[in-house]
Amino acid sequence: MSQEKHVYYFGPDGADGDSGMRELLGGKGANLAEMTNLGIPVPPGFTITTNVCAHFQKNNQYPDMLHGQVEEALARMGKAMNKSFGSTKNPLLVSVRSGARTSMPGMMDTVLNLGLNDQTVEGLIAATGNPRFAYDSYRRFIAMYGDVVMGLKASAKGEEDPFEKLLAAKKKARGVKDDSALDADALRELVAEFKSAIKKTLSKDFPEDPMEQLWGAIGAVFASWGNERAIAYRRMYDIPDEWGTAVNVQSMVFGNSGERSGTGVAFTRNPATGEKHFYGEYLINAQGEDVVAGVRTPEPIATLQKAMPKAYDELTGIYKKLESHYRDMQDVEFTIEDGKLWMLQTRVGKRTGVAAIRIAVEMEGEGLIDKKEAIMRADPEQLNQLLAPVFDSADKDAAVKNGRHLATGLPAGPGAACGRVVFSAPDAVEWKARGERVILVRNETSPEDIKGMRAAEGILTAQGGMTSHAALVARQMGTVCVAGCTALDIDYGKGQLTVGKHTIKEGDWISIDGTTGEVLAGEIKTFPSEVIQVLISKSLDPAKSSTYGLFAKMLDWADEVRRLRVRTNADQPDQCEQAIAFGAEGIGLCRTEHMFFGGDRIEAVRQMILSDDEAGRRTALAKLEPMQRKDFEGIFTVMAGKPVTIRLLDPPLHEFLPHDEEEIATVAKVLGVSSDELKRRNAALKEQNPMLGHRGCRLGMTYPEVYEMQVRAIIEAACAVASRGVKVYPEIMIPLTNHSKEMAAMRALAVRVADAAIAAAGTKLDYLVGTMIELPRACLVADQIAKNAQFFSFGTNDLTQTTFGISRDDCNHFMPHYLAQEIYTVDPFVSIDQEGMGQLLEMARDKGKKTRSDLKIGICGEHGGEPRSVEFCHRLGFDYVSCSPYRIPIARLAAAQAVLRGA
Amino acid sequence: MSQEKHVYYFGPDGADGDSGMRELLGGKGANLAEMTNLGIPVPPGFTITTNVCAHFQKNNQYPDMLHGQVEEALARMGKAMNKSFGSTKNPLLVSVRSGARTSMPGMMDTVLNLGLNDQTVEGLIAATGNPRFAYDSYRRFIAMYGDVVMGLKASAKGEEDPFEKLLAAKKKARGVKDDSALDADALRELVAEFKSAIKKTLSKDFPEDPMEQLWGAIGAVFASWGNERAIAYRRMYDIPDEWGTAVNVQSMVFGNSGERSGTGVAFTRNPATGEKHFYGEYLINAQGEDVVAGVRTPEPIATLQKAMPKAYDELTGIYKKLESHYRDMQDVEFTIEDGKLWMLQTRVGKRTGVAAIRIAVEMEGEGLIDKKEAIMRADPEQLNQLLAPVFDSADKDAAVKNGRHLATGLPAGPGAACGRVVFSAPDAVEWKARGERVILVRNETSPEDIKGMRAAEGILTAQGGMTSHAALVARQMGTVCVAGCTALDIDYGKGQLTVGKHTIKEGDWISIDGTTGEVLAGEIKTFPSEVIQVLISKSLDPAKSSTYGLFAKMLDWADEVRRLRVRTNADQPDQCEQAIAFGAEGIGLCRTEHMFFGGDRIEAVRQMILSDDEAGRRTALAKLEPMQRKDFEGIFTVMAGKPVTIRLLDPPLHEFLPHDEEEIATVAKVLGVSSDELKRRNAALKEQNPMLGHRGCRLGMTYPEVYEMQVRAIIEAACAVASRGVKVYPEIMIPLTNHSKEMAAMRALAVRVADAAIAAAGTKLDYLVGTMIELPRACLVADQIAKNAQFFSFGTNDLTQTTFGISRDDCNHFMPHYLAQEIYTVDPFVSIDQEGMGQLLEMARDKGKKTRSDLKIGICGEHGGEPRSVEFCHRLGFDYVSCSPYRIPIARLAAAQAVLRGA
Repeated sequence: MSQEKHVYYFGPDGADGDSGMRELLGGKGANLAEMTNLGIPVPPGFTITTNVCAHFQKNNQYPDMLHGQVEEALARMGKAMNKSFGSTKNPLLVSVRSGARTSMPGMMDTVLNLGLNDQTVEGLIAATGNPRFAYDSYRRFIAMYGDVVMGLKASAKGEEDPFEKLLAAKKKARGVKDDSALDADALRELVAEFKSAIKKTLSKDFPEDPMEQLWGAIGAVFASWGNERAIAYRRMYDIPDEWGTAVNVQSMVFGNSGERSGTGVAFTRNPATGEKHFYGEYLINAQGEDVVAGVRTPEPIATLQKAMPKAYDELTGIYKKLESHYRDMQDVEFTIEDGKLWMLQTRVGKRTGVAAIRIAVEMEGEGLIDKKEAIMRADPEQLNQLLAPVFDSADKDAAVKNGRHLATGLPAGPGAACGRVVFSAPDAVEWKARGERVILVRNETSPEDIKGMRAAEGILTAQGGMTSHAALVARQMGTVCVAGCTALDIDYGKGQLTVGKHTIKEGDWISIDGTTGEVLAGEIKTFPSEVIQVLISKSLDPAKSSTYGLFAKMLDWADEVRRLRVRTNADQPDQCEQAIAFGAEGIGLCRTEHMFFGGDRIEAVRQMILSDDEAGRRTALAKLEPMQRKDFEGIFTVMAGKPVTIRLLDPPLHEFLPHDEEEIATVAKVLGVSSDELKRRNAALKEQNPMLGHRGCRLGMTYPEVYEMQVRAIIEAACAVASRGVKVYPEIMIPLTNHSKEMAAMRALAVRVADAAIAAAGTKLDYLVGTMIELPRACLVADQIAKNAQFFSFGTNDLTQTTFGISRDDCNHFMPHYLAQEIYTVDPFVSIDQEGMGQLLEMARDKGKKTRSDLKIGICGEHGGEPRSVEFCHRLGFDYVSCSPYRIPIARLAAAQAVLRGA
Repeated sequence: MSQEKHVYYFGPDGADGDSGMRELLGGKGANLAEMTNLGIPVPPGFTITTNVCAHFQKNNQYPDMLHGQVEEALARMGKAMNKSFGSTKNPLLVSVRSGARTSMPGMMDTVLNLGLNDQTVEGLIAATGNPRFAYDSYRRFIAMYGDVVMGLKASAKGEEDPFEKLLAAKKKARGVKDDSALDADALRELVAEFKSAIKKTLSKDFPEDPMEQLWGAIGAVFASWGNERAIAYRRMYDIPDEWGTAVNVQSMVFGNSGERSGTGVAFTRNPATGEKHFYGEYLINAQGEDVVAGVRTPEPIATLQKAMPKAYDELTGIYKKLESHYRDMQDVEFTIEDGKLWMLQTRVGKRTGVAAIRIAVEMEGEGLIDKKEAIMRADPEQLNQLLAPVFDSADKDAAVKNGRHLATGLPAGPGAACGRVVFSAPDAVEWKARGERVILVRNETSPEDIKGMRAAEGILTAQGGMTSHAALVARQMGTVCVAGCTALDIDYGKGQLTVGKHTIKEGDWISIDGTTGEVLAGEIKTFPSEVIQVLISKSLDPAKSSTYGLFAKMLDWADEVRRLRVRTNADQPDQCEQAIAFGAEGIGLCRTEHMFFGGDRIEAVRQMILSDDEAGRRTALAKLEPMQRKDFEGIFTVMAGKPVTIRLLDPPLHEFLPHDEEEIATVAKVLGVSSDELKRRNAALKEQNPMLGHRGCRLGMTYPEVYEMQVRAIIEAACAVASRGVKVYPEIMIPLTNHSKEMAAMRALAVRVADAAIAAAGTKLDYLVGTMIELPRACLVADQIAKNAQFFSFGTNDLTQTTFGISRDDCNHFMPHYLAQEIYTVDPFVSIDQEGMGQLLEMARDKGKKTRSDLKIGICGEHGGEPRSVEFCHRLGFDYVSCSPYRIPIARLAAAQAVLRGA
């Protein structure tokens, strides 16, 4: 090893490394070399390779040649900077940083200004003519070095940092409040006090020799690779110990060394809108942290042209060069020292959803990237931002300033909504009917709240997670929703909610931001996004919206590329229309139970459930049948020519049961029994774990007349619509199967009823019978189930629940903890658990296809609109994903990215 | 095919087939041939092969040679019987039966007396001198033939059979009540009326030609192979259509042809006790059905020796021959016609558990079978009968006769118990304390009822299945239990239960039979079984109980053979002692939560749960810790030298919560909060699906202090007991893991606390940390989980629930239907679902062993004591099964049988 090259130099006179040497030089080192290679003025420096770290870990000493190579590189840096390391006239100061392949916690903090001692500080004064600057740099260096290299830290938790303590004492003694008010003398005194604190506590002198300082810092970086936190992190993410970290030693440059100096941050395009103009700000005679700290107000970058035209011109050239090199919008940091521009960092800039789309589409137009790259540049999740209604940001900021921020819950349904608080679904309906905008506030919602949820501008719940009933329905409806806002204490009885000191009564205005989870008192202005104005309310001419134009172009490109079909979960004709506007290619999940809550239906449903014999159930079903048929006719008509998967009744029956005395009395009357008798039946239907109870096709098995009614309604509706010349592709879906015989029985029922209905209609009609695969056992015996199923639709919500043994309604007590501790790196109800549940999906696919090679496979859980899950479905070769209407654009884009990522 | 042998004859002059020809001759045909080959007098006959059936299905005609072969065999039969088919002097009559490889539903019913017509009936009269007998045989033949061959059936459901209708009319006309009161004339008239009914309804004559009759019956057998019910059955059980059925044609013999004739059934040993004596009964001048019907009282078989010494001697010779040939107790049917003995059937006789053991052990002693066969002869489930307390059968029969039978529930905990009815667990404890015997009657039980359940003689629930809480705990405690007795209407308020017209009040006596599920009013005498008297109450000298001797010998043999270890699920020292008496080799599951309900503990537990910070929880835990430690000391002391697997806290916390005002007030006082505040916290802990909620190691992850307390208590107890020179092998089990990181965190916690406790004790102690595998995801990632788990114990109850998506507490509404429809051929909560869930067990085993080749694997669900599941665990190479104490003998025997079956 000793003959190896351990040190890679970079500077105005060239770089030894390049961006391809990430493994050897670490991410930071490789990037610095790359920038240097581009001819960009980077403060010179060198990188000690990761191999040295590995060598050091193994042998507890450095390779032989290292010292020589470091000294050589230091000399080269000095030459480039016209300074000299350890010089008492014009000393070269350096920073020392760690730099592994990927950034990770636990690694050593940066040490700045290394090279200062009582002699060199004089050199710095001589060179800059600024004693205060010199001593300020010196005392900062000692504090950093004393802390991160020598290990002088607060001795107990909660205790103040020892250097901060001395600083505070000094300010007190001098009668000043701010650090900046301490003069050079005071800072020089502090230097001495810092040193004696180190000596006293550690029984070690602060090293005055710059070379000793440097080797101390280098050794500390390597040692930090072996600290507990770093090791724990590597164990968690399976990062091999052998990787090691590199060490970057770089010349210091100072933006605060006078009026010909300055520092700034800038973006090569506007990160909020994506517009193509240089965007940023800077400060004269300041350090980088001053720009961020906000003590002085920075200047817009454009004014730099006037202040330092030469530096500005150079900066302009550089940002253009960087953007064309990296072919993406860059976020750059720069410092000007005595008129000389130095680039400290460049990285891909973060941006909003709108900006991401605009930048990608425009860069494609500029020939900077091709369509494929443009597609990869947009974050599918960020498309949400183009669809969600938005708060007027000034109005919202003012509200927060005025103490109107109440709490933050889960951002369950993106967008902004405000309205008057109501605490029940019927109230929401009633208030809406008299023209009010309402926010429905509930501890949680249930299927019988649907109408109220539809009436509300937004939904706010105190319980339930990102996939709770409220969240699921809200996203499907595109309604704004903040869920699981546990700080709320809702008192239905008093008709009020309290949160901290605030009490909000029924009828009070609140505003909720479903994109951030914020809940605010009072009204804040909102308006629908342009894309929604074009696609849904059709109140905006598409040609007049550049945002819509970008959105449409991006999705057109995605459609050209993707293989996976995108369907929607919808069960009302108006929802279907929305979904088609968003690009739905069919319905993947039409939940028939949502239809059971409308109008007088719920009474017939209750009558059906609470009858104690088949005859009673059939009487009730006869009332429902024409309504169901009409529902399906509406859907088939809208979905003309597109497949429609309809799931037969699924939820546990008690979800439909009457709850209050009045409802019970009504149903009792219809059934001709007493209220008490009805309450007893009600109680008998109660289940301890309804999720695992009498639901899904278990209803169809025990009450076949229910499924018979539904199949007949579907097929009769299909025949009726088909007779009007509309193409209809009904797909009948059996929920919750777990056994081949169950599927065989259900298919037999469906085919018997369907064929009879078709024969009665005297027409021809193709239909499919398939099943929802949402239980582990169904995956395990998928080969057998496929004998009687023409399609599989994975119900990934329930499959996640049973695979993990976690109820999504009850996981609030531990899921946040699991996510915070990174036990689960992602909420499995948000993104498919590929490692675990993914095995079941693969198994079911393989077994299913073995039995039936043309088996159609899709998913219809909430995951169908989540980009990583969509990509996974693409990789598994599924035919489609199905998601709520507002997530269709996300799924389309994610499906395209999946193709490109796989290629 | 036409050159083939289609017809296999059997008779006094030999048999063409043998018992090895089951595929060709069907089960019945092969057995008849086998008996014939043994030289046993079987009425001669022949079998038409299954190949003919296949040929007929395919070609819709018989093979060419069939007719000739049938006629030839008929002639041979006639010769052997000295009769002739179609003869008008002494006609040979035959029976025609189907006979596939295995019996299956839907096949044609038997036709008897075939060969009779208006001429041959006169021959029968001539030969027997008994016109009434002849016409009775004739009219029965026509009715059977008219029904099963010609198809004259009741035209609508619920309508009377047309032949029965005519019979009833005839009896009315003759003014008699019983069939037997009709004389020969009346029967002759009926013959004519039957024939004209056939003619009228079917427009077909009843065939007078015996040969035509025969071919009609043969054709009907083959046709029945193709009927709907038979096809559905074959589809369900994957039986190929090509198998086909054979047809057996056999000479009729008549035990009712005079005083020198008779008929009987007998067992070669006593089927109730197993004692070795010829056991049975017979009737002179009677048909087989008369013995069963109970119109005349049969004679004990021994008296036959006097009545018909020659036949008796022959019968004795035959039964000995049969038993030594089949080497098992036989159940035989015989008929004596005119002093000539004919054997109609022999089959392995059904027997009680006691008898099975006695017969097997004694046959081994007789050299009839070897030990291995003896082991295979006992039905493990039947061992229950040797352990269960028993009702005095005369007393019980009397009670049933007196209308005291109330209802029948599920036989959830075998045995007999009676006592006075109480409706709450505290009442059970109180009544027991004052010396009463009680039956605890509840809609369902919960963990807080444990003390009451322990106090009760028996437990009766209206809800819940075979694996409900009540059933599970009852079996673990060996308590009699009838569960899910849905006919009961319990009114806690009134302190009474009603069932039908009976009302049972608190304090009334009832008796429950947990072996049959019967519930009876009043008291019925019971006594503990001899085995229990020897092993548990130690009130009987083992040498004085032959039953115990048999039991012990059988289990000793089993222990010599089995590989699988058998542990127990127990959590109290007395339970552990019982388990050891039953042969437990360790504890596979010690549920710590059961300990949480004792004494003042529940208050501390509630205080712990309802504290809103860690400090409050730690205060409460400090109270619990010494009690837990003492519990474990007791268990380790009893289990000396045997491994003890202790599961850390598992159930959802709300199971421990206070329910009534008084309890709430008590806990509120301890916590220093208001009852209202406490109710709110109570409500916040409520879960929609507690099975999938905040439980298992999710408690340990969120409240690590709970698990820390438990681990410390376990290890301190182990050190304390070990210091007394007792060997201790604690195995700490983490419940409900589903992720490798979760397991890693839990293992780290356990090891940290355990090692600290061992160090503090200044001793050495080996312990294991492992996990319960009870969620599908845990199986899918078992390789990763095994990195931090030294053992896997499959919690097959919960794994069944999540794999199937079925809550065992809520499946009563559909599981009975699924079992009745044979969707599930066995309740997956009773016997492991090998087809589905079995895949997960295998996967987890393979993955786990891949990571850790010495991984210890067992199961601790209810399945651990179920024979088929035990065999499955053996096949999977698991190390042990763990079951409730009373099922240990069953598991030991099943484990031995698994070895022998696999060999």
